[in-house]
Amino acid sequence: MILTVTLNTALDVTYAVDRLVPHGSHRVRAVRSRAGGKGINVARVLHALGRPVLALGFAGGASGEEIRAELATSAVPAELVALTQGRSRRTVTVVSREDGDATIFNEPGDPLPATDWEAFVDRYRTCVEAADVVVLSGSLPPAAPPESYAVLVALAAAHGTATVVDASGEPLTRALEQRPGVVKPNLQEARATTGLDDPVVAAERLRADGAGAVVVSCGAEGLAAVTPEGSWMALPPKRIAGNPTGAGDACVAALAAGIADGSPWPERLADAVAMSAAAVLTPVAGELDHTAYRRFRERAAVEHLPAASGRCP
Amino acid sequence: MILTVTLNTALDVTYAVDRLVPHGSHRVRAVRSRAGGKGINVARVLHALGRPVLALGFAGGASGEEIRAELATSAVPAELVALTQGRSRRTVTVVSREDGDATIFNEPGDPLPATDWEAFVDRYRTCVEAADVVVLSGSLPPAAPPESYAVLVALAAAHGTATVVDASGEPLTRALEQRPGVVKPNLQEARATTGLDDPVVAAERLRADGAGAVVVSCGAEGLAAVTPEGSWMALPPKRIAGNPTGAGDACVAALAAGIADGSPWPERLADAVAMSAAAVLTPVAGELDHTAYRRFRERAAVEHLPAASGRCP
Repeated sequence: MILTVTLNTALDVTYAVDRLVPHGSHRVRAVRSRAGGKGINVARVLHALGRPVLALGFAGGASGEEIRAELATSAVPAELVALTQGRSRRTVTVVSREDGDATIFNEPGDPLPATDWEAFVDRYRTCVEAADVVVLSGSLPPAAPPESYAVLVALAAAHGTATVVDASGEPLTRALEQRPGVVKPNLQEARATTGLDDPVVAAERLRADGAGAVVVSCGAEGLAAVTPEGSWMALPPKRIAGNPTGAGDACVAALAAGIADGSPWPERLADAVAMSAAAVLTPVAGELDHTAYRRFRERAAVEHLPAASGRCP
Repeated sequence: MILTVTLNTALDVTYAVDRLVPHGSHRVRAVRSRAGGKGINVARVLHALGRPVLALGFAGGASGEEIRAELATSAVPAELVALTQGRSRRTVTVVSREDGDATIFNEPGDPLPATDWEAFVDRYRTCVEAADVVVLSGSLPPAAPPESYAVLVALAAAHGTATVVDASGEPLTRALEQRPGVVKPNLQEARATTGLDDPVVAAERLRADGAGAVVVSCGAEGLAAVTPEGSWMALPPKRIAGNPTGAGDACVAALAAGIADGSPWPERLADAVAMSAAAVLTPVAGELDHTAYRRFRERAAVEHLPAASGRCP
């Protein structure tokens, strides 16, 4: 079973409008609400692939009830710790029907009570025993300890369970101290964390700082990976137009599945780049176009790199 | 007591962002949620003026619970009929801190079940007995009968209770058949309903069609009124910059209070134009800047018009 952690669980709401007009009044044509947050999206992709998965997170208030109800409808296995104070944040994505473009509004969310974090760690401790891989994804809620991911990586390591961390800033640098199996920042996050421009050089630095392997997602330019088996660039078959939200989560889902299967790194990367590209074709995060995935998978290119020479093309 | 009716009750959510960037991802700096819909806003203004008021509406689902909770906190007296199916709609207003401008997204809401409409009419029938004035404000929810306001005006008339209708399109034209006391469309709505450009001419047509008096709100240009006592233009003391959302509701609140007091029309209109201008100064609908209201009230100009000659200046 792959265990995903979403400390900043959200209710993701999508509004379809004819056209976004700044300072205008819009009639929303369709409303769609789904449980979200990066780890929930990863769990959704893994569930769509038929993988045993469990999503851990938080839920509180009226929006928390909506999150629970939607996960039950989607049949994504989840355990959400009830917030003792505050409510789950919402995100609103306004999609223009004219051009398909998305404008996103992320609520900050309420501060995470310390007792709820402790309850979460207790729950995690139990679940990690049954997990083959743990995925820790996304930002932390306000007031969550910056060492949250470090604590969860250490607990997984104590059980010999592999970890994938998709984070940035202090939560990522603190996690590195506990030697996570894989970290997957995007290019912007890798640059911000290391101060290094080149994705492969930045990945090598993050690996030297403690990660077993580093995969840097470079958007439409693919993935740069530095692993114990070597370094690679993984390239999607072509530039895909669509909704990039959720492409990083699909990439993380593929990496976690590859680790669970013990497949070689070039296979994992081909899967990850194809899954990301397929996710761009779907209108909402956490969904997967299986046909596109198989097509992209056949044509994904994984190029071996000499050390420290790569650059997103 | 002034009874307000809000068939399309909403949870109005305001997001503060630094700057609205179409197709960007925004960190929401502050979230504020309030019960809304035009009749709720009218009740809020009347309550702030110390007037006995009761707001009637609907509430359903998680957003309905938030509407109930917020009204309880605000201490605005309200009775909300529970929706047997569906949930209360939300509106999201994104306010840019850079320029103060608002971009509004209105959810359509779920269809109103016929049994809930019948339950509402029963509740209304009881409440109208204790009411001095009834205010019917705003759009109808999907599937509500187009004669909704006509039915409610007729029931109020049967008790000799005065009515103020702030509506447009078919709900307004159907209501006119039941001879409401006052109708208050805005200029755009008056033009769309009558096909007449001049606000006073349009108001005279609506009065001929059944309204006791007609007040057309012309935004910053003030109010055009055609009443049994004569016709007037009411002008605010100066052009006010700010948030026009809720100005129409403040105008309706002033008109309803004036009817309850039996004050002469020029007094009502001076109140209404001052209250509207004061509402523009407040960041959210349904609030009132009392100091600004008193200042504007002293300087509001109400000009008597010969029949059918006026035009918003």
